[in-house]
Amino acid sequence: MTLYELAPTPSARRVNIFLAELGVSVDRVNVDIRGGENLTDEFKAISINGRIPVLKLDDGQTLCESVAICRYFDELLKPVNSLFGNSPIEKANVEMWQRICELQGLFIGFQAFRNITKIYEDRENCIEAWGEESKQRLIDFLPTLETQLSQHEYIAGNTFSIADITAYVMVSFIQHLDITPAPDQLHLQRWQQQIEQRVAVQSVNAGTNT
Amino acid sequence: MTLYELAPTPSARRVNIFLAELGVSVDRVNVDIRGGENLTDEFKAISINGRIPVLKLDDGQTLCESVAICRYFDELLKPVNSLFGNSPIEKANVEMWQRICELQGLFIGFQAFRNITKIYEDRENCIEAWGEESKQRLIDFLPTLETQLSQHEYIAGNTFSIADITAYVMVSFIQHLDITPAPDQLHLQRWQQQIEQRVAVQSVNAGTNT
Repeated sequence: MTLYELAPTPSARRVNIFLAELGVSVDRVNVDIRGGENLTDEFKAISINGRIPVLKLDDGQTLCESVAICRYFDELLKPVNSLFGNSPIEKANVEMWQRICELQGLFIGFQAFRNITKIYEDRENCIEAWGEESKQRLIDFLPTLETQLSQHEYIAGNTFSIADITAYVMVSFIQHLDITPAPDQLHLQRWQQQIEQRVAVQSVNAGTNT
Repeated sequence: MTLYELAPTPSARRVNIFLAELGVSVDRVNVDIRGGENLTDEFKAISINGRIPVLKLDDGQTLCESVAICRYFDELLKPVNSLFGNSPIEKANVEMWQRICELQGLFIGFQAFRNITKIYEDRENCIEAWGEESKQRLIDFLPTLETQLSQHEYIAGNTFSIADITAYVMVSFIQHLDITPAPDQLHLQRWQQQIEQRVAVQSVNAGTNT
């Protein structure tokens, strides 16, 4: 199996932290997104959404979308403690928080970043006012995490899950928009430090993951 | 169990088609979103994202996010043919298409609709230029579905899945933005008619689902 990625991007980081948590090694190929390597017909043939990361299986089948790649490994390896949860209510709760952190967090962060910095204006229309509005919505979203983390150790409850990975990658990424937890968001800060101490997260942050 | 919803909304339709496909009946309570009933402290106490649908379990626990509610029932009932897929690669493939249809389809449709119509300008800033940009991105996304449906009977392959529900709700919803499949998108039209003939979909469209 080969993972096509660009290691420092948030979507690649999500997959890489997940794989490091599971102790999975894969071959990796870097794709030059800024240079437009993902816009070629060759890349589009392996990635339906035209984005990284993409996992190419040994039979040639390909999977894009970071959470789909994580779910593939989870279902293949069936770890005793799944990062997607175990019982029906746990799985639903992880899915809920994973979606909240993505749809009100990471995805809005992408829209803020792309529309404010216009980093990809060679390939998309940028609406700066939407970037600024998205940035404000992100700031307004952080208290939801603070409240949850004041009542639970992790994002989806008392167990580390994929929702923590999504939220952690989001909180790291929005530093590029000059957004950090407010001084009084102490539970969010406690959680962020705790996630950063995980061996898997440290290996991805140091680039020593395999 | 009680489902708090507003039946004609796309998110409620996703859950309702899923439940009808599984043959699940639940008690239902309508929430007046337009009137701001979801903005009350009482509603926020049961819905973390402040939105419908929300499922209240018999023990008082609540779940929001439509896909999380669907996954709860899927995991609880474990149907022989899961709408989330069965084998690891099937599950990953369904997750991939579900996310593509949501992140490039339904979610962008919501942003287009809310920012163009300004239906909720009493509670959010609307950026009309982003609404128009989102509308164009939706139009540009439909060929991805047309290509997939020219090669497969359903969105995620040869089996009906939750990705079809998301895509069908999206294609129905974007009619409000005057977007319909183009005359030459014959596979998309064929698929749409096929989905509309399903008993579960007909019951939800007619409002006769339980």
